[in-house]
Amino acid sequence: MKAYIVGVGMTKFEKPETRDWQYWDMVREAGTAALEDAGVRYDQVEQVPVGYCFEASTAGQRAVYELGLTGVPVYNVNNNCATGSTALMLARQFVEGGSSDCVLAVGFEKMARGSLGGGTEGGGGFASSPVARHYGIMAAAHGFEMSPPTAQIFGNAAREHMQRYGTTPAQLAAVGAKNHRHSVDNPYAQFQDPYTVEEVLAARTVHDPLTKLQCSPTSDGAAAAVVVSERFVERHGLGERAVEIAAQAMTTDTGASFASGTCIDAVGAPMSRAAARQVYESSGLGPGDLDVIELHDCFSINELLTYEALGLCGEGESGKLVESGATTYGGRWVVNPSGGLISKGHPLGATGIAQAAELTWQLRGEAGPRQVPGARTGLAHNIGLGGAAVVTLLRR
Amino acid sequence: MKAYIVGVGMTKFEKPETRDWQYWDMVREAGTAALEDAGVRYDQVEQVPVGYCFEASTAGQRAVYELGLTGVPVYNVNNNCATGSTALMLARQFVEGGSSDCVLAVGFEKMARGSLGGGTEGGGGFASSPVARHYGIMAAAHGFEMSPPTAQIFGNAAREHMQRYGTTPAQLAAVGAKNHRHSVDNPYAQFQDPYTVEEVLAARTVHDPLTKLQCSPTSDGAAAAVVVSERFVERHGLGERAVEIAAQAMTTDTGASFASGTCIDAVGAPMSRAAARQVYESSGLGPGDLDVIELHDCFSINELLTYEALGLCGEGESGKLVESGATTYGGRWVVNPSGGLISKGHPLGATGIAQAAELTWQLRGEAGPRQVPGARTGLAHNIGLGGAAVVTLLRR
Repeated sequence: MKAYIVGVGMTKFEKPETRDWQYWDMVREAGTAALEDAGVRYDQVEQVPVGYCFEASTAGQRAVYELGLTGVPVYNVNNNCATGSTALMLARQFVEGGSSDCVLAVGFEKMARGSLGGGTEGGGGFASSPVARHYGIMAAAHGFEMSPPTAQIFGNAAREHMQRYGTTPAQLAAVGAKNHRHSVDNPYAQFQDPYTVEEVLAARTVHDPLTKLQCSPTSDGAAAAVVVSERFVERHGLGERAVEIAAQAMTTDTGASFASGTCIDAVGAPMSRAAARQVYESSGLGPGDLDVIELHDCFSINELLTYEALGLCGEGESGKLVESGATTYGGRWVVNPSGGLISKGHPLGATGIAQAAELTWQLRGEAGPRQVPGARTGLAHNIGLGGAAVVTLLRR
Repeated sequence: MKAYIVGVGMTKFEKPETRDWQYWDMVREAGTAALEDAGVRYDQVEQVPVGYCFEASTAGQRAVYELGLTGVPVYNVNNNCATGSTALMLARQFVEGGSSDCVLAVGFEKMARGSLGGGTEGGGGFASSPVARHYGIMAAAHGFEMSPPTAQIFGNAAREHMQRYGTTPAQLAAVGAKNHRHSVDNPYAQFQDPYTVEEVLAARTVHDPLTKLQCSPTSDGAAAAVVVSERFVERHGLGERAVEIAAQAMTTDTGASFASGTCIDAVGAPMSRAAARQVYESSGLGPGDLDVIELHDCFSINELLTYEALGLCGEGESGKLVESGATTYGGRWVVNPSGGLISKGHPLGATGIAQAAELTWQLRGEAGPRQVPGARTGLAHNIGLGGAAVVTLLRR
């Protein structure tokens, strides 16, 4: 039984404390938008997977009770930065497996201001994650200081990429410039200001070579998606709203994450490559079939690493690829038309579902000034250290 | 595609700090036991839902990486005290839906000593759960002081039951005496000491009328179950090990949890009743068909409330039922042969899977001195405030 996304919604992603809201307020807003987009009532929803990292147990119930007290199963899930797509992965399986015809996948995060890696309560994200110690030890072994842990690890991966392949600081900055430029047309984005490559390079260094404009910010926000069966689409005449989940895969760490001792492998490039391969194999599609991509640019280097993992270019060629313009409007693909994590923002639990929301709008031709012309096939890539990578292929 | 449990394993449940172990040590022990019980290797496992409440995000990966680095999907789930059965519910759906033939469901908790409702890191369990405030406010409205929150809420529900139905302190104590007596024969139980009803009544009062021997303790422990498809059972000749998951349902709060303003409803009796009804309807079985039951006796009153919710007796008759001996060896059903949460212990994330482990042993006739003679059909009931109730029907 094929699964379709028929409705998506999200809040504007915002710097924490911009609005006086609680996480359940965000979920009410995003969930209501998704249901309205689908033309589905909450009492038609049969199961609700909810993703978040930083709240206590059963926060998902507290949040979705805002949409209704219908007594349906609620699953609270987490997978660090891949949490949102983990909820989506459950929704797809519930529908494909025939246990439900209509599932609402929700993701949210209310993050303490300036605390990527340490939330409002509980959790603590990657900084306190069980595998963080391993990465920390490995970074120490490479002679790098501990600064904000995720920025350090990705910064170290960037240095490795520069040393190994001759990637330049300007190529890394080109990712930031591209994604900030894209976000100008996205009203849901936390930032909507364009920057030149020079401006990105000149911004404050977070962990060399990564500057602030190449790093995802701390964000509040929520996103939701209504996932339904083919039968539900037909019964309710939702064909015009429906985007097919053509393939999806989650991978976790294997020996490859740790064995090589490189930061490129430690930040999950092997997981991304494996998840992409699974999705290409099961769909019979390849990178050449994609029109639009939302990928996990938590830091500019990860967009480059992911170009290679997804097969958009060969190993070590990603710096040249972004510089060539192949991954923006007018190029072979548009990568991160939403502005990506760097400029749209990155509320951990929401990100994976927000990626699916952007692709849904793009594939329906509803993305307004940031529309990728003629987009029919889209790919979402969401990764969390610790770890999990989820790749999702959507098709109209 | 029917789903079967073919292997189960658990650690001994223990008072925190009894052993010098981390949560991943527990999971290695319980997971290895479950795989060996099934005769399945970890590299045959296709997906891994992991339940816990008190650790940071992706603790599931850290734990199951001890069993192997195979790269399979890992889902970290929580649902307060119903967390373990939430993981089991995912495993069942993955198998029934055909997305996997072999899934390992895992649950664990490493709880700070003496801190039911406040864990080792992050989370914080019910005390900090989003719905706790509601219960707290409601309890305050009834004029009860705040003590350990869960004990208070359940104690208040016990007072209501006494006022409304004439239930006696001795009947409540009979639950504790029965479950402590059962645990004498369970080497996995945290306590293995028998107590008379008089001794249970004379123990320290936690929240009147509940004494210490009627309350589940703070516990460390893990449990795991291998859930496979009918096809997998046949291909690997596992028919002798296989226990069918005949039906399963999860319910969350509806208006009924809050509307009446009674503590009996607030502690989840309506959720339990609804989940039981769904399971009876989908299986075509009823309370009269059950032989053995593992139910969520976090406090003695909840065992009584659950007798009524499961339809073992009429409303208000549960005190008389336990006193009659109908729920112990020689009676109509054996309820909590393991010793239940009260005496076996209650490491939140592990409990739901440990219940399934006990039933699996019982239905296979492998429960040794605590074997329920001729047990063929078993029911597990797991509930978490905040909230979710999961009822699972197992059959040989």
